Amino acid sequence: MLVVMNAQATAAQIEGVAQRICELGFVPQVIPGQTCTAIGVTGNKGPIDRSRLLRLPGVEQVVRVTGPYKRVARAARPGRSSFPVASTHIGGGFTLIAGPCAVESARTILETARFLTERGVRLLRGGAYKPRTSPYSFQGLGSEGLACLAKAREETGIGIVTEALDVENVARVEEVADIIQVGSRSMQNYPLLRRIAQTRKPVLLKRGIAATVEEWLMAAEYLMSDGNQQVILCERGVRSFGDYTRYVLDLAIVPVLKHLTHLPVVVDPSHATGDARYVPSMALAALAAGADGLLIELHRNPSQALSDGAQALDFDEFVELHAKMKSVAAALDVELR
Amino acid sequence: MLVVMNAQATAAQIEGVAQRICELGFVPQVIPGQTCTAIGVTGNKGPIDRSRLLRLPGVEQVVRVTGPYKRVARAARPGRSSFPVASTHIGGGFTLIAGPCAVESARTILETARFLTERGVRLLRGGAYKPRTSPYSFQGLGSEGLACLAKAREETGIGIVTEALDVENVARVEEVADIIQVGSRSMQNYPLLRRIAQTRKPVLLKRGIAATVEEWLMAAEYLMSDGNQQVILCERGVRSFGDYTRYVLDLAIVPVLKHLTHLPVVVDPSHATGDARYVPSMALAALAAGADGLLIELHRNPSQALSDGAQALDFDEFVELHAKMKSVAAALDVELR
Amino acid sequence: MLVVMNAQATAAQIEGVAQRICELGFVPQVIPGQTCTAIGVTGNKGPIDRSRLLRLPGVEQVVRVTGPYKRVARAARPGRSSFPVASTHIGGGFTLIAGPCAVESARTILETARFLTERGVRLLRGGAYKPRTSPYSFQGLGSEGLACLAKAREETGIGIVTEALDVENVARVEEVADIIQVGSRSMQNYPLLRRIAQTRKPVLLKRGIAATVEEWLMAAEYLMSDGNQQVILCERGVRSFGDYTRYVLDLAIVPVLKHLTHLPVVVDPSHATGDARYVPSMALAALAAGADGLLIELHRNPSQALSDGAQALDFDEFVELHAKMKSVAAALDVELR
Amino acid sequence: MLVVMNAQATAAQIEGVAQRICELGFVPQVIPGQTCTAIGVTGNKGPIDRSRLLRLPGVEQVVRVTGPYKRVARAARPGRSSFPVASTHIGGGFTLIAGPCAVESARTILETARFLTERGVRLLRGGAYKPRTSPYSFQGLGSEGLACLAKAREETGIGIVTEALDVENVARVEEVADIIQVGSRSMQNYPLLRRIAQTRKPVLLKRGIAATVEEWLMAAEYLMSDGNQQVILCERGVRSFGDYTRYVLDLAIVPVLKHLTHLPVVVDPSHATGDARYVPSMALAALAAGADGLLIELHRNPSQALSDGAQALDFDEFVELHAKMKSVAAALDVELR
Repeated sequence: MLVVMNAQATAAQIEGVAQRICELGFVPQVIPGQTCTAIGVTGNKGPIDRSRLLRLPGVEQVVRVTGPYKRVARAARPGRSSFPVASTHIGGGFTLIAGPCAVESARTILETARFLTERGVRLLRGGAYKPRTSPYSFQGLGSEGLACLAKAREETGIGIVTEALDVENVARVEEVADIIQVGSRSMQNYPLLRRIAQTRKPVLLKRGIAATVEEWLMAAEYLMSDGNQQVILCERGVRSFGDYTRYVLDLAIVPVLKHLTHLPVVVDPSHATGDARYVPSMALAALAAGADGLLIELHRNPSQALSDGAQALDFDEFVELHAKMKSVAAALDVELR
Repeated sequence: MLVVMNAQATAAQIEGVAQRICELGFVPQVIPGQTCTAIGVTGNKGPIDRSRLLRLPGVEQVVRVTGPYKRVARAARPGRSSFPVASTHIGGGFTLIAGPCAVESARTILETARFLTERGVRLLRGGAYKPRTSPYSFQGLGSEGLACLAKAREETGIGIVTEALDVENVARVEEVADIIQVGSRSMQNYPLLRRIAQTRKPVLLKRGIAATVEEWLMAAEYLMSDGNQQVILCERGVRSFGDYTRYVLDLAIVPVLKHLTHLPVVVDPSHATGDARYVPSMALAALAAGADGLLIELHRNPSQALSDGAQALDFDEFVELHAKMKSVAAALDVELR
Repeated sequence: MLVVMNAQATAAQIEGVAQRICELGFVPQVIPGQTCTAIGVTGNKGPIDRSRLLRLPGVEQVVRVTGPYKRVARAARPGRSSFPVASTHIGGGFTLIAGPCAVESARTILETARFLTERGVRLLRGGAYKPRTSPYSFQGLGSEGLACLAKAREETGIGIVTEALDVENVARVEEVADIIQVGSRSMQNYPLLRRIAQTRKPVLLKRGIAATVEEWLMAAEYLMSDGNQQVILCERGVRSFGDYTRYVLDLAIVPVLKHLTHLPVVVDPSHATGDARYVPSMALAALAAGADGLLIELHRNPSQALSDGAQALDFDEFVELHAKMKSVAAALDVELR
Repeated sequence: MLVVMNAQATAAQIEGVAQRICELGFVPQVIPGQTCTAIGVTGNKGPIDRSRLLRLPGVEQVVRVTGPYKRVARAARPGRSSFPVASTHIGGGFTLIAGPCAVESARTILETARFLTERGVRLLRGGAYKPRTSPYSFQGLGSEGLACLAKAREETGIGIVTEALDVENVARVEEVADIIQVGSRSMQNYPLLRRIAQTRKPVLLKRGIAATVEEWLMAAEYLMSDGNQQVILCERGVRSFGDYTRYVLDLAIVPVLKHLTHLPVVVDPSHATGDARYVPSMALAALAAGADGLLIELHRNPSQALSDGAQALDFDEFVELHAKMKSVAAALDVELR
């Protein structure tokens, strides 16, 4: 942390800041400059609250130098995180997770699970509890949806990825899910994160619609500091000014996260674009960008879907995309799962 | 809703869309144009899911014409919402809500409550449960903080505004709060909204950091459709590219909301700017813009604050601002409470 | 400037960076920290190019500590800039500039000039050269429009604010304009800025649609370093995700700019909101926020306007707003001109 | 275009709008709805100015249904645009354009040209005129830089891509350039676009930092309506809230543009990320996303570069990336040039 004094700061004000830094238990290091003096704060072991220094007389700004994350930081462990899930694993390859936005019936979810397992895809996504912008929209089948997912797993051996929306239902979701999804609206729902951390199940943590890297990684830090080490980060687009896609898919976050953290990163091109016409090219781009996997929407009959049909691939489109992913993965020497 | 066909759409495709609209229970109205055909969807009583039509052959886009809100819409009731809270009321005037970001001790909160009541301010804000980006930051005093607030109310008669973070603690918060705050991170925490709706206490609903007007009003619609009619909207800045203020305070939302809804709108210049130097001018701007009130941070000694001290006014700064607000309110013939 | 080394940086890498800083003519100051070493760069008189250091081995990031502006910086002169324009002046009060988006005819512009001068408003805005998003839209009357403005000035004594779009026409605009406007699309058109700097006329520099404070102030620095000291900054909204207003009016930039620079700041609520219904409240908010003036669109008959009629006030609406501005200015003890 | 009346609109107001539509030369089509009436505007051949209707009594909003572009629209010609440039061509394959941000000397630019031609890359980028945020930064070598580029072309046969910054220098740039670049700051510099259109040279039109698709395509429409049909669109990142990359690379724009226009689309991962560590993965992602080419920065010694060295690949990094691009292009059956 660096405290920058304003150009008019007096010697007494500089002394005052240095003293305050000592009181907080840190070591000040004064750096006189051409136009202003800066004071380095050293000797700290964790993050320091900027606002403890910002309102002292003569202070212009307080600049943070290092990120506040500990357990998620790349330096926290040698190599990259990778962990088994159902009959596959996440990290060190490109893992596909596909399925409908919402579970709609036992029959259709089973049909989808069979379609996927026949093609070697081992993780099925499907929402039982759906957070919907409108109270008047379809809110998911709830525990009945979980039962459909459990049945699909039983019959096909496919792993299940499904969202937990609130603390109450975590126990129920935990029974069925191989990966518990935290939706983008819940990324900073700290009580929910703390409850999910206790499950010790892998967690797929979607990025909030306007979350900075720091906010996102600190949400992962909530999970890890409570003992859950199996965190998967999922980029799903951020809000921007355009309206030609629903969100802006921020693919450069993939190499950025590889630089900052050891955690695996998957990409959801379906929610990001909101339009099935643009999903295949973004799925291939995610693979080429070095992501660890894909969360992709798939529906037997998208124009009949109860939610978000516009962004779901149909089975034929998926088959076509899958063939291309195989080629590109081979070209990049990446294991496609 | 308007379905726009692409330029190459065939007569059969147009017919197909029209038929689908009928199947969904609505009435299609075909509008042939110079470059493409549009099909109006009429006869609907509530919102229609766009994606039910978007993937039909020949469809280019689906344009929503009217907002999906019912109870929050201005047309839903004559006049503007206004309701009593503690010894004051919200709506039809400019109501001040002031206090520290977090409750820090019984002594300081009581001191603040006295300072405010002596100046005619009748609502005290203070967080007992604090959502913090980092798991390592001060998380609030919890139920002990609620007890401090209850004591301040008992001794001074001031009304209490405090946040409920999760379903578990709503009952406890409800006992103490005159207004229950929903923080920006929780704006789309629908299970929490539904639980809070049951309390029948006035709710201060902060805008999510990148929430569109529609998402925000639909969050209010969750509260209202579950029977809680006392909703206050609170603008607190949206995320943008600048870093000279923490968020961009979107003050034009005030007249926009006055146009779209009957609900009262207050402004939080403290979280929006994150910098006490900029708070007074934004507080005056909010008043001039026609807001119904202000949520403003105040701390006896900001540089000692346990959270967000950089954005809190000290007592002297508040007194100076209060005097200016009185002048401007008088000039605009607005009742300052 | 502060160079932050990564956690694994070797002593040799730290030495290498220090040496490079010396080669560039500056003085390195090594600050060893708990997790990483930082190196202060001191002894510089102007800005340093970050990228000269960023790719050296072991460097994690390069943090700039002070702004790169010189002449625009508040510290560059005692007090605030203020200068006479036509029969009024800018700075140290609240100066109104009103008129149509585009000059449409000699008759209507004269009518508007008379309406304004009768009410004590002494600056008329009106575009002769209009930058339009579509090549098929009305592009302004050009030199004929300038002649209309010249005539209005001659007959009423009102000062003229009009835009120069390209280097070719600066000389023509200069003859007529009392203030030369640089539009938001031209904020970083450096050849144009350099040509306009030579005119020595006051310049109204609109903010680019997504310009950071630094980019904006550096554009002003282009004007000032070329010898034109009469620069007025104009906030006109920034691009964001909402669509309920055309841009987001960033009013907090007003106190931020007052903190960073000595230059006067005016606000354009018309282009920012794009909707006349929201203009009056934003005009009042700009005044309350401490701006130095207003650029506001006014049209005898907005629904017949050749460009941007939706955002123009009609004469009656202006009269009503003007009365309120008088009250608020008096309440704040600000001179309304 | 669709005019939506507000819920309280009277029959007379609806009639008034319909009449106004007739006066403007179009055909109104009234669509009565459940909550409000809409009026379709048909019979128009070009775009209609929304504001001609927006301020009429009873109007709530005016919704545009079709894009305002003509010549850039995909429907304007069969197939996709593709054109020869120097010894290669653009469109229908993946064309590499590489080189330094700024031309620094005849020797280094020739060295770079040789390095590229030896590897089969046939287009060299390099700025002679550099738009720089600060007036105190290196502004390019100007006509001397153009001479260096001309010499590199003469000796190696490589094609030249360089920027024209102002109308004055277009003639000089035209002599040397095989493709004239319009920088993102100039995307809406209409006088410059009109002058460049006259050259009949291919134009690489970079996206403005916060340009919507419509604004960008309308800038291309300026070039095309003035007779220049050889327009290349270049995505280079848009401004957003993050600071871990300089801009957010909006890769989904690639399939969106393929849907909307026949023009070729290239991607600039260097300016978008501002960080060489993230460039290779974004270059591969652009290829996988279906772009028509890449504009990429390359420098013999990035840490000595006079501008933007942090984002330039060095020669070894380029060789490594090139090999991967060859594999992926082959996997996708795309011709890499």
